[in-house]
Amino acid sequence: EELSLDLLIGELAEQLQPEQIAILLEAFPIKSRLIVWELLPSDCQKDVFLEMKNESRQMLLNVLSDDACYLLLDKLDASSLLDFTDDLSDRFVEYAVAQMTAKQREHFKAAQDYKDDEVGHWQTFNAKQIPQQIKVSAAKKLCSKSLPQLTETVYVTDSQSKLVGEIAINRLLSLDDDALLVDVINHDIQFLQASSDMDEAAEIVIMSGKSALPIVDDNGRLMGRLDLFSAFKHQEEERDNQLMQSAGLVEEEDLFASVWLSSKNRAIWLGINLITAFLASWFIGLFEATLQQVVALAVLMPVVASMGGISGSQTLTLIIRGLALGQITDANKKAIINKELKVGAINGILWALVIGIITYFWFESPMLSFTICIAILGNIIVASLSGVWVPWVLNKLNIDPALSGSVILTTVTDIFGFIAFLGCGTLFLL
Amino acid sequence: EELSLDLLIGELAEQLQPEQIAILLEAFPIKSRLIVWELLPSDCQKDVFLEMKNESRQMLLNVLSDDACYLLLDKLDASSLLDFTDDLSDRFVEYAVAQMTAKQREHFKAAQDYKDDEVGHWQTFNAKQIPQQIKVSAAKKLCSKSLPQLTETVYVTDSQSKLVGEIAINRLLSLDDDALLVDVINHDIQFLQASSDMDEAAEIVIMSGKSALPIVDDNGRLMGRLDLFSAFKHQEEERDNQLMQSAGLVEEEDLFASVWLSSKNRAIWLGINLITAFLASWFIGLFEATLQQVVALAVLMPVVASMGGISGSQTLTLIIRGLALGQITDANKKAIINKELKVGAINGILWALVIGIITYFWFESPMLSFTICIAILGNIIVASLSGVWVPWVLNKLNIDPALSGSVILTTVTDIFGFIAFLGCGTLFLL
Repeated sequence: EELSLDLLIGELAEQLQPEQIAILLEAFPIKSRLIVWELLPSDCQKDVFLEMKNESRQMLLNVLSDDACYLLLDKLDASSLLDFTDDLSDRFVEYAVAQMTAKQREHFKAAQDYKDDEVGHWQTFNAKQIPQQIKVSAAKKLCSKSLPQLTETVYVTDSQSKLVGEIAINRLLSLDDDALLVDVINHDIQFLQASSDMDEAAEIVIMSGKSALPIVDDNGRLMGRLDLFSAFKHQEEERDNQLMQSAGLVEEEDLFASVWLSSKNRAIWLGINLITAFLASWFIGLFEATLQQVVALAVLMPVVASMGGISGSQTLTLIIRGLALGQITDANKKAIINKELKVGAINGILWALVIGIITYFWFESPMLSFTICIAILGNIIVASLSGVWVPWVLNKLNIDPALSGSVILTTVTDIFGFIAFLGCGTLFLL
Repeated sequence: EELSLDLLIGELAEQLQPEQIAILLEAFPIKSRLIVWELLPSDCQKDVFLEMKNESRQMLLNVLSDDACYLLLDKLDASSLLDFTDDLSDRFVEYAVAQMTAKQREHFKAAQDYKDDEVGHWQTFNAKQIPQQIKVSAAKKLCSKSLPQLTETVYVTDSQSKLVGEIAINRLLSLDDDALLVDVINHDIQFLQASSDMDEAAEIVIMSGKSALPIVDDNGRLMGRLDLFSAFKHQEEERDNQLMQSAGLVEEEDLFASVWLSSKNRAIWLGINLITAFLASWFIGLFEATLQQVVALAVLMPVVASMGGISGSQTLTLIIRGLALGQITDANKKAIINKELKVGAINGILWALVIGIITYFWFESPMLSFTICIAILGNIIVASLSGVWVPWVLNKLNIDPALSGSVILTTVTDIFGFIAFLGCGTLFLL
């Protein structure tokens, strides 16, 4: 049994990419995960380790012996270590840095000079670089060796490592061997400053139509590059983190994170939500006397709250996307509100009528039916407006509306819905 | 004033990529959008048109004169037209097909043989292809001309256009001019079948470590390729569509879509939601007599429902991600449920106590306080279990849990919460 497991895992390690093995591994509860891990070929372990999610990597380091950990941290390259330095204890970082090649250590230190929202922190140091003084024949020789993925262009530097130009590899094919490189390269090139914002840099690389862009330091010296793959992966991670955070989860929560840790992380979000729920309750409490006399109002409260919540979320989703794309500005905000208001009015009228009719047949009270009509219409319209205003204001305050927009919006529509419904109820039904 | 607007837009058209102009354009209400559109240089209009969202493109075609539309559909390449054929009226498609070059028309027809979830439908026809019988010198000449983006490798075909190998462009640099291409190429290559699933193909390209993979038809003939950029863009669009659909919006709803169209699209989702809301109301209605006597129950209902909803969503988000990555299986489901149950129990006990204490100080009724404790504890635990079970079952039924999971889960936690809270209230408080 154990032998066949061993064989199977060996086979899988052959067939799959490290990233796929990491995903597979994270599907195991901690104890079995360790058994599978031990059965992985040791040359494969390190590649897989580098592909794991931060939290899972941390969990693995916690259970492995120190010797096993050190083995995983041997001879890393700068970009790999930078990916998870922040989560690593100091003694491990020191060890990993000490075990790097001198070149990689230099890269690592250079990258650490940049903050983790700057592209310099995330660059890879595999930009193919050739000196400008050489002949085309020498350039051909340098470029014919194996190149890193996504290299269609090589970068040309002067004697101070300053980036002076680039040349597409396929252009070299037709050039005369005796020509000087400096005479044939393209000097007008697109590059990134290492200190520029990572999110923007990723967007620029994706828009550039190139497979990578070179990164230079403040003195114009070529440091590394950001390729298309890394740019897309960065965007993907940002979106994924946003999604997890908007549910009050930690960025990279492992399926089998420790029960205490998970509970603690999620408790905070539940606590925030509890405040908003009690706020809504408090407003309902203002109408206790009304509820006592017309208990049907209590029965129908969820309908009013829920229709408002859904309408608001629809507008919110549209507006959050528009804000992310930079499409919503002071100039067109009025037009957007105008349109959402009309959509809200149409759906408000439609569903107010539908709900009014159902209520009439259920409770046989025309005034109750009228009351819920008014509340639904009002709440759907308010929800549509809040769906624009809430993310707009959050965005102005530099708070990501994708994270907290939904909670705030639902609180607004809940409270408005309850006040409108119970308030009208007090007026018309008592 | 008009002149300066003209200049400004001309300037923008110079500076920005077509995709950026498309995003900018979509930020304008329809009327102003048309004014900006008319001021765009005509060579730029077509590029922008191709980058627009489907719905926005449709809106533009609706307001432009037929002549202007025809101009935009002139000399398209196959992949561009395939992107939006489905939304185009037949006469426009016919016109566009007629105006294509013979080569592109052939590509277009070939791609139309594949369904829109097959990679053949979405391939680009810019794979650089060279015949195997030629010499290296001839290959060098062919490859030195300008190449499509993300071309590090050229594909080699036999006299029947069958894919027989590939060669990295930089390897050509060091090869002897007189060698025969067939002797130096790599014959063991990774490729995609045109009929394979698009989602999987995109994943394979991303995992491949290459900048593109070639696509062959059933007979092994090279048709086109799928590059890294298109693969990532496909995944991005899928995620974006999922996000919009999960709020009941149409995939590519324009910020300024017509009011009627928007209202109609959103109404359906509101209707579905209304059914679930009335269902919850109906269950509350069963306890009308209890509510009449203990109106505090009505006041506190939202707290019970909301704590359940939030706990459930946290588990749901984690499980949906796990399902998408294929990490959740029959084998580890029990362990996951086990863990979520423990997390639910811990947070359930914690928040039941907190809410119990607050309720005691608010309403000064120990039995009401006890009732809400039980209901909160029960609902958070049920929510944690449903957070695993709901997406699991939906997934088994081939329904995307990211789309409807949240609505179903909230319905479950609402209804369970109301029954637990009002049921315990009936037992303990009457």
